[in-house]
Formats: sequence, structure tokens, C-alpha cells
Amino acid sequence: MTVFRKHLFDLPKDVIYLDGNSLGPLPRAAKKRVAKMMQDEWGQLLIRGWNDAGWMSQPSRVGNRVAKLIGAPDGSVVMGDTLSVKVYQALAAAIQMRPDRTKILSDTGNFPTDLYMADGLIETLDKGHDLSLCDPADVASRIDGETAAVLLTEVDYRTGRKHDMAQITKIAHQNGAVMMWDLAHSAGAIPVDIASCSAEFAIGCTYKYLNAGPGAPAFIYVRPDISQTIEPALAGWLGHSAPFAFERSYRPGTGIERMRVGTPPVIQMAALEAALDVWDGVNLQDVRLQSIALQEVFIKEVEARVPALTLASPRDPAERGSQVSFSHEEGYSAMQALIARGVIGDFRAPNIMRFGFTPLFIDENDVVAAAKHIETVFAEHLWDNPEFRKRSAVT
Amino acid sequence: MTVFRKHLFDLPKDVIYLDGNSLGPLPRAAKKRVAKMMQDEWGQLLIRGWNDAGWMSQPSRVGNRVAKLIGAPDGSVVMGDTLSVKVYQALAAAIQMRPDRTKILSDTGNFPTDLYMADGLIETLDKGHDLSLCDPADVASRIDGETAAVLLTEVDYRTGRKHDMAQITKIAHQNGAVMMWDLAHSAGAIPVDIASCSAEFAIGCTYKYLNAGPGAPAFIYVRPDISQTIEPALAGWLGHSAPFAFERSYRPGTGIERMRVGTPPVIQMAALEAALDVWDGVNLQDVRLQSIALQEVFIKEVEARVPALTLASPRDPAERGSQVSFSHEEGYSAMQALIARGVIGDFRAPNIMRFGFTPLFIDENDVVAAAKHIETVFAEHLWDNPEFRKRSAVT
Repeated sequence: MTVFRKHLFDLPKDVIYLDGNSLGPLPRAAKKRVAKMMQDEWGQLLIRGWNDAGWMSQPSRVGNRVAKLIGAPDGSVVMGDTLSVKVYQALAAAIQMRPDRTKILSDTGNFPTDLYMADGLIETLDKGHDLSLCDPADVASRIDGETAAVLLTEVDYRTGRKHDMAQITKIAHQNGAVMMWDLAHSAGAIPVDIASCSAEFAIGCTYKYLNAGPGAPAFIYVRPDISQTIEPALAGWLGHSAPFAFERSYRPGTGIERMRVGTPPVIQMAALEAALDVWDGVNLQDVRLQSIALQEVFIKEVEARVPALTLASPRDPAERGSQVSFSHEEGYSAMQALIARGVIGDFRAPNIMRFGFTPLFIDENDVVAAAKHIETVFAEHLWDNPEFRKRSAVT
Repeated sequence: MTVFRKHLFDLPKDVIYLDGNSLGPLPRAAKKRVAKMMQDEWGQLLIRGWNDAGWMSQPSRVGNRVAKLIGAPDGSVVMGDTLSVKVYQALAAAIQMRPDRTKILSDTGNFPTDLYMADGLIETLDKGHDLSLCDPADVASRIDGETAAVLLTEVDYRTGRKHDMAQITKIAHQNGAVMMWDLAHSAGAIPVDIASCSAEFAIGCTYKYLNAGPGAPAFIYVRPDISQTIEPALAGWLGHSAPFAFERSYRPGTGIERMRVGTPPVIQMAALEAALDVWDGVNLQDVRLQSIALQEVFIKEVEARVPALTLASPRDPAERGSQVSFSHEEGYSAMQALIARGVIGDFRAPNIMRFGFTPLFIDENDVVAAAKHIETVFAEHLWDNPEFRKRSAVT
């Protein structure tokens, strides 16, 4: 069944937006919802909004909706903070769970902030933990009986290469390691079944494929059987069992609630709730099939038209997420020229031109048209025109 | 000069809002600004908004505006996350600065999340740090040569009691301790001169007196001479010196930039920027004078009308922030009855009725009218009516 529903988004005319893997477009409902939240809830209810408009329970309520998109049960996901902060929370908890181990494993395809946050935690702890990175293809063989935690992003932000979550998690657990998945490029892009892979932790953001807007809240999943035993490193008052009792001592809230920290960003939450409405009735298996179909057309068209570009993503669609990357030494400038023509992808150092496929608002016509623009840009070396040398941006 | 500018806010008719110390009201400009940001920036620029609309530099740009309101120089304040997370960052840095000391001092008037976050950090570090609390009046005498850091909120969230920042900071420094102020109930409420008091760290929120909306971003100030030496515990990619180089290793950004963590909440930032416009041309000394005048009228009127209420704030206005609290054993129910009549304050356990004074939109007529409502509520024991027994909320 088609998942195409472009009419639900505000997209500029004459733009082909292949960057929904970095920042999703504006859902029309989000504008209305935020305006209404500001006018009727903040404006009229004022402080009463925390209860009367349900702001206080929103991080868990919305968490349950995100849970459905990643195969997690009710009550196992909560929204808030940024993905970076959620990495810290999850890894701190994972380290607690394996007090006799100090090895943390990740790979060179992980997004830098995950590694930076892990480094920061390790230095803050100062207990001899070691974060080592391997090639993504070697992860399974590098996990051993000394590994405390494995920290991976399912889909590589540069290449789109996708890990086998079930298999790697199984190997981690066979070795007694805690498994933690970053789903930034998975949630809303591909089917995820976090519960059946049995990983302890997952984290992700909602501003990419979930279209919740720049700086939208992150999510964290904790496997329900362990969420009740975690002592949160970030022991914020809204993770307290009774925040409004203002007790002297921190008592963690029930299960996933303890992963809340401070006051939730209610305006961003309103945009997120509206953005999630877009997913009503959407089957992620359909999204996956349609994404792959678009990617295959794109690869075929681009390779036929621009032999100078080298596919930097896996050739097998089963090994890719929902993006296709090509490498070229002039990739940065070529992407600027492409953006100037209305085909928006992005660039990742050192030489990756990255294109995201989001079948909710991209169809085959867009993909073929984009390939033709790429052909023109490369045929005419349009990046030599300084006008196109503007800057682009973010993850 | 009067700072009254109620026309800049959307306030419900028939409400006297004495809870701007918990959640400020909606600035009219914030609605427009957020709608415009969503429509023109997110909707039309999409990913290009990070550069073309200045989203990426917004946390520092807005930080400079908040800096002016707390007496901090340009480049010393950055926005993001929640106050809880900023407490963690600041305290982790303070502990680094005093590796040979383990005593951390706070007081019983501090807001619980500050203490919880400190507890969480201490337990995560597991290096024998000790957080001890004393009575607010005893802080100065409890700081000694073993104190690593002093962590205080300037204005007590329950009683409005105000610390002498300059004096306590001086004593902390004389004893070699690092000083950290929570300005949640100070920023936009009273004049703050963080630079001349010379404290190392300050943090605060923007949803109270700064009216930036529920869950608005927090701020952190680091004294410029030390900001360049901090190794951030929360080493997020946007605090990296070159986030888009995607380097393997974390290299902290210049000065205060390193206190950024993850992707900033751009929609909330838009509301915040508009809310700060309300402060253009406002002198905080005028705010202070007018707040005290309102508080004095309120105390006089309430005490004359309702002898059953006990003033829980300092009698001397110089020792109060911008709120007045009364205690009463039926305080919770009485506040509900008052809210039902359109006079919105809030309740803090165990028995505190709390009223915030915000001369930007509250005048003497409001204050006298509020006192009359309180008189009626207590004269008629209106809280015995179950209809009034709704719930109120948040800090």
C-alpha cells in the first residue's frame, strides 16, 4: 500500500528534498498544532497546562507512540533532551550493569557525538574504561568476554550501511555485554523490532525521518526488565518518583520514567505529536519496500548518467538503510551546485554526497528528476560557479 | 520608569496571574515568531535553516542577550538543554577544578533538582564526594578550606529568601571553593551582576520571569577566564571545536561554546528570542523597585485582611526575590479555591501559598484585587467546596 502523503507536508515548490534523513520537512499539522498549543494552552491555561493540557505526562504518552515505530512495548520509551544526552544516560547505566568490565566497543561508522559523549563519560568516571573502535564489518568478531557494552548506530550516517541488529545483539549477549543501539537513522526509516532483538538500550532523534522539526526531543528505550533497576546518572527531578513532593532525596520513578531529567520542551513536543499523526496507518514494511524501490531507481539512474560518481553505500539494498551515498572528490561543491538547483541532499566529509529517501513525500518522478540534475551538474561542472559555493549543514 | 507592558502579552481575561515565577505568560510576539520560524525557516529553508536562518549560532547569539540580563559579558553564556543538565555540567567542571577536595556545600532552600543532579553526579563519580546541606542562614559560616564547591540558588523557590551573592561568593573564594549560582528565580526578576560577584558558574531557566514558554532552554554562564580550561563531562558534538569535521576525537570548542551539547531546540529558541524582545529598554533596577512596591502592597493588604495567613518570606524586601509566600495548613486547598476564582498562584509542600510579582504585566490594581479574593476565600472557607479541589502544578 502506498505510503505517499506529500499533501500532509509543506514543501517549497521547485525543491526535491532528499535530506529528510537530516531534517524532515514541516508537517502541515505541526504548524497548526504548535499555534494552538501556544494560544490555547500556554496562553490561556498558563501554569495549569502542566496538568490540564497533559504537558507533564506528554513525554511518556508520546514515547508510547514512538515505541510503536520501533517495535517497543508501551511504557518502555520516553522523550526528552537530545540524543547526545540520552547516549550518556544509557551508557552510564550500561557501565553500572557491568562493574567488572571496562571495555566498550563501537565502530568507525558511529556518529561522532555518540563517541564524544562516551569519551566524556569515561573521562568523568576515570575508572579505566576504554572505548575502542573497529571497522563496522568486524564488530561481531571483536565482541568478547571482556566487553562491557557495545554501542552502535544501526545505519551509518555516511554510507547508509545497516547493521544486523538481531545478530550483533545476540553475540553481545552471548559474551555478557550490554547492547545499545542508536536508531537516529532508523526510526521512521526502516522497520525496527527492538523488543525482539532484546537490546538493553536504544536511543534516537525525531527530527530526521520522524519530521518533528529542528532540535525535536530525543527518545530513549530501556528494556522493561532492567528499567526498574537503573540508578540514573542524570537524576533530574522529573525522573523522581514524586517530583512535586520536593523531597530531599532522589527516588527514581517507575521504570522508564526515571530516564526523564528536566522540564520537557512542550512547544517542540507539540510539533512532535503532530508529526507523529502523519504516521497513522503507515506500515513501516511498506515504507521500507518503497524506499528500496526509490533507492534502486536512483542508483541505476545516477550510475547510468554520471559514471564519475562512486557508490559509497552497500550495493545490496538489504544492507542499506534509507539513504544512498556517492563519493566524489568534488562532492562538496557539486552538492552546493545541486542545492542551488533545488535538489537538496547534503555532504559529509571527506567526499560523500548523501541522499535520503523518504517515501512519505518523495516519489519516482522526484528521483529521476534528481538524477537528471546531478547529470547536468557534473556534465557542466556547475560547481565552478562561485555563486553555488554557499554552505550547507547538519547531521 | 514604568516597566509595565501588559499589552505585549496574551493573558486570559479575568485572570490575575501571580505565577510568572513558575511559568511566564505568552508574549504576543512569540506566537508570531514561532509561526514565522516554522513556515518560513523550517518549511521553506529546510536543512538550509541551520546556516541561512542562523539556527546553528542561535544558542550563543541568544546567550548574549540573556547575558545582558544577568550582568555577564558577551561570549560567556550559552543556551540549551534543561537547567538540570546544566547543573550537572557546571558541577562536574567545578569538581574537576578542585581535585583534592571532596566537600560540596548547598542549603536546604535549594531546588531539589539541583541536589538530585549533584547526587547523581557524585554517585556516578564514586570518588567519595559528599554533598551536605545547611540552613540558608548558615551557608557563609559552613564554607571552609575543605569545600570544593558551593552550589546555591540565589532566591529560594519556597520562601523567596534571597542570598547575598557577592558576600557568599567572596567567602567561597577566600576558602578556595568554586562558586555556582542557580539563577532560576533571579533572571528577569532582580538585577544580577554575575561578573562582578566573580562566581565561576551560573545556570538558570528562561520559562519563569523571562517568559519563553514551557520547557524553554536553560542557560549556563562560565566565567571567561576559566571557560577555556574546562573538559566538558557532557562532550556533545555541538560543543566540539569543528562539529562538521566529524573527527574521531572530541576537541572542545572555544570558551563557552564547549558547554553546548546536542542539537538545539530551534522552535523553543524562536519563542525565547521573541520573549527577550519584551525586555528591550527595560532596566532591571526599575523592575526591582516596582516588584518590591507590589510585594509591599500585597503583604500589607493580605495581612490586614487575612490574619490567619503567616508570612513565610522575609519581612525585609531587600532579603526577598520577586515572590511572596504565606503559609497556612489549608494552603493547598485555599490555593485551588483561589485559582478557581482566577487568581493564579501556586502551592509548594507542605503549606506554602506562593505568589510571584512580575511588574511587566502586574500592577497595583491586580495586587489589591488578588488580596480581596484571598480574603473571600478565607472568610468563606471556599476550599470546602469540592469543585475547587482541582490540581495545580510545576516549579
